[in-house]
Amino acid sequence: MTHACGPTVGDLGELGLLQRLFRYCPSDVVGDDAAVIALPPGQRLVVTTDMLVDGVHFSDRTTAPADVGWRAAAANLSDLAAMGATPLGLTVALSLPQSCPVAWVEQLYQGMAACLDQWGGQVIGGDLCRSDRISLSITALGQIAPNQVFYRHTAQPGQVIVATGFHGLSRAGLELLLAPERGAGLTDSHRQRWIQAHRRPIPRLDVVAHLRALQPDFAQPIAAMDSSDGLANAVLHLCQSSGVGAVLDADRLPLDPALVDWVGLETARHWCLYGGEDFELVLCLPEAQAQALHHRLGPETMMLGYTTSDPAVRLHFSPTDPPAASYTADAGSLLDLSFNQGFQHF
Amino acid sequence: MTHACGPTVGDLGELGLLQRLFRYCPSDVVGDDAAVIALPPGQRLVVTTDMLVDGVHFSDRTTAPADVGWRAAAANLSDLAAMGATPLGLTVALSLPQSCPVAWVEQLYQGMAACLDQWGGQVIGGDLCRSDRISLSITALGQIAPNQVFYRHTAQPGQVIVATGFHGLSRAGLELLLAPERGAGLTDSHRQRWIQAHRRPIPRLDVVAHLRALQPDFAQPIAAMDSSDGLANAVLHLCQSSGVGAVLDADRLPLDPALVDWVGLETARHWCLYGGEDFELVLCLPEAQAQALHHRLGPETMMLGYTTSDPAVRLHFSPTDPPAASYTADAGSLLDLSFNQGFQHF
Repeated sequence: MTHACGPTVGDLGELGLLQRLFRYCPSDVVGDDAAVIALPPGQRLVVTTDMLVDGVHFSDRTTAPADVGWRAAAANLSDLAAMGATPLGLTVALSLPQSCPVAWVEQLYQGMAACLDQWGGQVIGGDLCRSDRISLSITALGQIAPNQVFYRHTAQPGQVIVATGFHGLSRAGLELLLAPERGAGLTDSHRQRWIQAHRRPIPRLDVVAHLRALQPDFAQPIAAMDSSDGLANAVLHLCQSSGVGAVLDADRLPLDPALVDWVGLETARHWCLYGGEDFELVLCLPEAQAQALHHRLGPETMMLGYTTSDPAVRLHFSPTDPPAASYTADAGSLLDLSFNQGFQHF
Repeated sequence: MTHACGPTVGDLGELGLLQRLFRYCPSDVVGDDAAVIALPPGQRLVVTTDMLVDGVHFSDRTTAPADVGWRAAAANLSDLAAMGATPLGLTVALSLPQSCPVAWVEQLYQGMAACLDQWGGQVIGGDLCRSDRISLSITALGQIAPNQVFYRHTAQPGQVIVATGFHGLSRAGLELLLAPERGAGLTDSHRQRWIQAHRRPIPRLDVVAHLRALQPDFAQPIAAMDSSDGLANAVLHLCQSSGVGAVLDADRLPLDPALVDWVGLETARHWCLYGGEDFELVLCLPEAQAQALHHRLGPETMMLGYTTSDPAVRLHFSPTDPPAASYTADAGSLLDLSFNQGFQHF
């Protein structure tokens, strides 16, 4: 890490640092061995945890501390959105080297607070400890009425698979941050949007509100997952959990046309399916509901295929646009998707 | 780390490891983007987070993976006990090197499960990621009726300060693990008890049940904190939060007489006050309640002093037993306690 001057975590000490960070927390909740939170009557608690490690999930080369904070909060809120839940708050466990500037930690918290201010929830607790590597573990809490939960296992054959926005943009943004010269031919607007997709992803809590409005009685369960580990991964998990398969249409993948222009169709499709960290929602919906959601969310929301009773998960190419030789297509124009091409931590 | 053979985390891959760890979780709760938990009507949610880092909080030299798991769970359950709460479950975020044996991770989970089996709660979710250093972040969830919460800020002058058991034993156990030859003169029973205090601390959820039985109507708030960061730290925090001070009696510190015999009174007092990780509860109670609790819990529960309106926190020595010269006693036989002698992470 290279940083501007100013006091380090070691200079300030644990109690001093805690006092600074308490400013980002509601004063009536922190300062005890644990936080006490009220849930409205009839609501269930929704809990999710994500860990981020310096050098694995972020680096100073591509991500300012405020962006690390935003992304960490957004990744957790995205998991809440994937369950249909409303954010309540989060806890933050942070390991830091003594040499870490206090300003780095404060900017991290500012980024988290900015995301929470926009999407809901507060920092309600945490822990600090020493390590030679920065790591950040967030647990997010949300609330939901028990009959309104989105699970992965409730998809049924013949439903439409919807992705709530373009995929591959976070991967494109990372590319631009690692090799800025590659973006010379892009418009400022695309360059900025893709970098923003990487640095400040949006948890799709707005989609939850739309889905509730479309089906206020929740007569039919909604199967959902977020695409934090890639679009293909989300479709595969939804299908595996539900005991269904899927056929996706290669021509209806949620691709930004400018991305196709920039890196070519082949790479754009790969980033779309396997790039990860787009934090969109992937949903299995009856066709009418899928159409209505598409209408509300706009053209970047794609109905990319449908679920099948055959458990295979395949990508279908039109005869005029076959997959490139680098893919091993079986069954002619159908390509099996697999977990193996996505990011695995180990 | 040195470990026996067997597959590593890298051999198994993230999905393979996840599948193994799912065995330790209730199958109806894990496997989605988040867990959904029901709270009984009228109960509040209690949330606490602790992070443990290899080389800082534990090492293979002194702690087997099952003990790391037990201690991590126990530390979090202890925070719930300090709030008066009943455990619901916990989430586990784990960073691991690829070279880490799968057996290490499974033993970690077995240790957590053993602690939860005994004291309540289940593993309800988590996250896995890669790092060159093992770290473990646990968020524990508990439940409590809103009028039964123990806070730190409700102590009043003239209450009795109670510690629910001996202090300094975890520090003694660590000493025995680091330098076994020092324990040659000890009985097996003391040696084992102190090592167990370090490896398998007990979260004092039993004390919560006793306090509820003693005061079923919760007419008077109970001020409480756990002594994970040391007995002195707990008294100082309780006093600071409540705007009171305290006088502790040096002759009534919760000291194991065998520990005094082993390391001398001076060191035993220091470990008792500043050793940390004893995970007892420190309570401020009206005298009658303190007496009744002492009666229920037995002689290791000490009434070690009382709260005062004067905000100083002092240790009082009898004239026949003054503090050693290494302490800077002011006001004759009164010694100011301070946060600075305890463990700070930075």
